[in-house]
Amino acid sequence: MSGLFISFEGGEGSGKTTQTDLLVARLEAETGRRVVRLHEPGGTPLGEYIREWVKAQGAPLTLPAELLLFVASRAELVQRVIRPELDADSIVVADRYADSTTVYQGHARGLPLKDVRAANAIATGGVWPDLTFLLDVLPDASLRRAGLQMSFDEEGQVEPVPRADDSTKRRFEELGASFHRRVREGYLRLAKAEPERWVVVDGQQPVEEVHAQVWERVQGLQRSM
Amino acid sequence: MSGLFISFEGGEGSGKTTQTDLLVARLEAETGRRVVRLHEPGGTPLGEYIREWVKAQGAPLTLPAELLLFVASRAELVQRVIRPELDADSIVVADRYADSTTVYQGHARGLPLKDVRAANAIATGGVWPDLTFLLDVLPDASLRRAGLQMSFDEEGQVEPVPRADDSTKRRFEELGASFHRRVREGYLRLAKAEPERWVVVDGQQPVEEVHAQVWERVQGLQRSM
Repeated sequence: MSGLFISFEGGEGSGKTTQTDLLVARLEAETGRRVVRLHEPGGTPLGEYIREWVKAQGAPLTLPAELLLFVASRAELVQRVIRPELDADSIVVADRYADSTTVYQGHARGLPLKDVRAANAIATGGVWPDLTFLLDVLPDASLRRAGLQMSFDEEGQVEPVPRADDSTKRRFEELGASFHRRVREGYLRLAKAEPERWVVVDGQQPVEEVHAQVWERVQGLQRSM
Repeated sequence: MSGLFISFEGGEGSGKTTQTDLLVARLEAETGRRVVRLHEPGGTPLGEYIREWVKAQGAPLTLPAELLLFVASRAELVQRVIRPELDADSIVVADRYADSTTVYQGHARGLPLKDVRAANAIATGGVWPDLTFLLDVLPDASLRRAGLQMSFDEEGQVEPVPRADDSTKRRFEELGASFHRRVREGYLRLAKAEPERWVVVDGQQPVEEVHAQVWERVQGLQRSM
């Protein structure tokens, strides 16, 4: 595989989507290479189907089923899209990838990490990003920035925010804060364990400053390849 | 869990569905306990959805995606149906269960067995049958009995039989024979590795004779519990 695979990771409201957009636009403008933007699930018929189903469901799936469904979708994405694109020398930029599953289903929601790793290993078939940016944001700031807009798309299956009354909202914010702390700690642990792949960027900086740091590392990676 | 969990396994045309029907009917008539009949995928909204999707698709899924989709459906089935039913003292009879995945996706189609085992471990959460009947049939007899009617329901995702012309049919029969040999060998290996759970029954005997042997073992299991 001769392409380049870059992923953005981080909690809700950390700016992943914005940074993905900026990087994709800049790569398209400056490299002349084909750039493919991914946002899981989706990107394959199976992924879209799963996304629709999860949205349509009233009752949430059990945690193991959710894990396996997500990685099934990822397996299709890897074999149908990511691997062929990388083989064709494209640059693939993903707004979340397998690390999200490790952190959300594993660190934050408590599935055994060995199970999550096994499932990810089957799904990725060893296809991991060359570079992963962790947009690190303190949970409090993250919650403010996300405006408590939790949904399937944005943050990987946390229940939508109940806005019924103040006590519910308070309970959620408490629950949310601890959840988001686990997410952040999980990410930092992954980044520490694999420093050659991860770049931790302070996501609380201005958007353009974050992008500048991302771009510098991406240019360094391109030069080295 | 105080219930009883029994599964039937075996290749195409080995008589699993018939034997499941006979056992369910007899258990209902003679035990007075609630008997639940399962046929994967299905049995949960997710399972039905996956079954519909796989049927509707023209292009087959990649092998890892297919594995993960099946075990996702199984994870729901275990947590939503099998575990609660066993907790409520029901008898659960499954026409295929996790062993089918090990044999079809692993032994026969070549996914690494450690991946299949890991996926099954997540999905089953340790819920395995108390007793598994392998209806053992020689591949040739099996193919004849199945009348070459391969479909998603019957045998776990082998491509449907092409009937276009004799050479295609011949090629399929060759492919099929070797495939079904791997299935049979896979099952026999599993049965040998875990003799306390598996009962190998000669599936080429008359239906009533097979049922008599099944029933004898089930009665023995009930006495011991």
